Amino acid sequence: MPLTRRALLASTAIPVAAPALAQTNPMPTPQPSPSAQAPGFYRYKVGDIEVTAVNDGFATRPLEGFIRNAELPAVQKAMEEAFLPKDRLPITFTTLVLRQNGRVTLIDTGNGDMGAPTAGTWMANFRAAGFDPAQVNAVVISHFHGDHINGLRLKDGTAVFPKAEIVVPAKEWDFWMDEARMNQAPEGMKGAFQNVHRVFDPVAKEVKRYEADKEIVPGLTSIAAPGHTPGHTSYMLSSGAGKLMIMSDVTNHPALFVRNPDWAAVFDMDADQARQTRHRMLDMAAAERAQVAFYHAPFPSTGHIAKEGSGYRFVPVQWSATVL
Amino acid sequence: MPLTRRALLASTAIPVAAPALAQTNPMPTPQPSPSAQAPGFYRYKVGDIEVTAVNDGFATRPLEGFIRNAELPAVQKAMEEAFLPKDRLPITFTTLVLRQNGRVTLIDTGNGDMGAPTAGTWMANFRAAGFDPAQVNAVVISHFHGDHINGLRLKDGTAVFPKAEIVVPAKEWDFWMDEARMNQAPEGMKGAFQNVHRVFDPVAKEVKRYEADKEIVPGLTSIAAPGHTPGHTSYMLSSGAGKLMIMSDVTNHPALFVRNPDWAAVFDMDADQARQTRHRMLDMAAAERAQVAFYHAPFPSTGHIAKEGSGYRFVPVQWSATVL
Repeated sequence: MPLTRRALLASTAIPVAAPALAQTNPMPTPQPSPSAQAPGFYRYKVGDIEVTAVNDGFATRPLEGFIRNAELPAVQKAMEEAFLPKDRLPITFTTLVLRQNGRVTLIDTGNGDMGAPTAGTWMANFRAAGFDPAQVNAVVISHFHGDHINGLRLKDGTAVFPKAEIVVPAKEWDFWMDEARMNQAPEGMKGAFQNVHRVFDPVAKEVKRYEADKEIVPGLTSIAAPGHTPGHTSYMLSSGAGKLMIMSDVTNHPALFVRNPDWAAVFDMDADQARQTRHRMLDMAAAERAQVAFYHAPFPSTGHIAKEGSGYRFVPVQWSATVL
Repeated sequence: MPLTRRALLASTAIPVAAPALAQTNPMPTPQPSPSAQAPGFYRYKVGDIEVTAVNDGFATRPLEGFIRNAELPAVQKAMEEAFLPKDRLPITFTTLVLRQNGRVTLIDTGNGDMGAPTAGTWMANFRAAGFDPAQVNAVVISHFHGDHINGLRLKDGTAVFPKAEIVVPAKEWDFWMDEARMNQAPEGMKGAFQNVHRVFDPVAKEVKRYEADKEIVPGLTSIAAPGHTPGHTSYMLSSGAGKLMIMSDVTNHPALFVRNPDWAAVFDMDADQARQTRHRMLDMAAAERAQVAFYHAPFPSTGHIAKEGSGYRFVPVQWSATVL
């Protein structure tokens, strides 16, 4: 069965993990259990660039209260249409690893050792895909929520990618690293600010900041996609005729927010701006029939966008045994 | 990119592999290439029964001529809506492995060493999932097309599952093992008959035959689903509250035949009967909101069926890092 209530109740979600709420979940080591799930990675090509989707497990949120501007029965109906549970939403985490001319670039890092008990599988999957954290040349960050940045640094302070250049959105840096803003933030937001400092303070001098519409590493161009956070960034990955729109958190689960792009998740810091961004990006993806990747789509988290009714539909790619 | 024309042109399809057309494709050994695809297995639970979907790669067919009763532009439109190529159809092969109380049962076996160059990955995936062919207790066969039975016996005659009881539909046995019928068969069908003899003759005395509506192994009940072949069989797998409708070849690719259940693939031996069976099974799945598995759906080949317009839609399950 896909996702039973029993199994989902066993997990909790802390997508924006604050240190005070961190759960005990040491970095996993591969367990060759005869009943284990297959390693959570999936490889595909974008022109000459090899892309590997690396899964970091999932977390669940109670459905009630998750969407600010929709009634629970409407949300439950969307879940039912997607054959998902009607009480809790399973949210997947999937990062991307790019390899080109021997250089390895990560886009976001997962929850590290600070996520839900059902998350934290990133390192095992990354190693199963044949990678080593010491070989990572660059880590590009889309925004500063904990489920995207906590993989950079363990709870004990260890830098996970010792040789990697860390590249972040300038707007995001300016927002979260502003001491005055942190001090004025409401209590519920302070943990998120503190977590940004935990991750970035030890390397603050070396962190590189990027602007919108810039090529960050060869083939990867930033697209300003604000709303979810002030500096939230999407990307266009291009190589030859190959293109991939990397959406980051333009939507949370596609079954809710691609189908209903006007719905606002509690994680969107500026709901109106996030909605405008979401429409603009989904429109572009549908018009261009571009392949897309979403951080929170079901693994392997890549597919296409079709217009449908007043919203859109996410059509997952057909899994290929051959790396195409 | 999901499935490029270039990559697809490199492969050919022989879903009903006849010995005369067999291609050189020895049983693969796992290749720990740093650029390899993830192992093609996916585990889930149906009550107390552990189900493992094991992929055998894919083969492609030219789209032209594949559907008997639809014009090419209509078929191309369906492919376009699914973001699939407009000239060739990539057909996935995925078998099921059931484990319950230490007993291992296969449902169908894949192409063995007689499939397309892009198929034949079954054994590597089966081993990656922690299984050994010597531990298989039973192999249940849905019908006698080559892509379902060739995994039982290598080209050189070796039995792949030496200790397994082989269990086949009685109607399928009676049809394909009838010498008079083989001798009267048109030239284009003779290879399929000869292949059935190749696979089953050495064990003809030990093969067990099952009727419809019978429990074959604990929890697995046969459902007559004729049309694709005379004895083609689907199954209901039940354990506690868990249920899985195992469709076998009630449809070929869901993007074509779940969406358009009246379309007839060239592989359906009795197109009218296959159509009736398809409607009956899809209706049942939609009405019961049952989880389903299709042999030729995109890996991991399991999901649910929703009614939509005059047809249905296949909604894949959400991949889970935890075996649920």
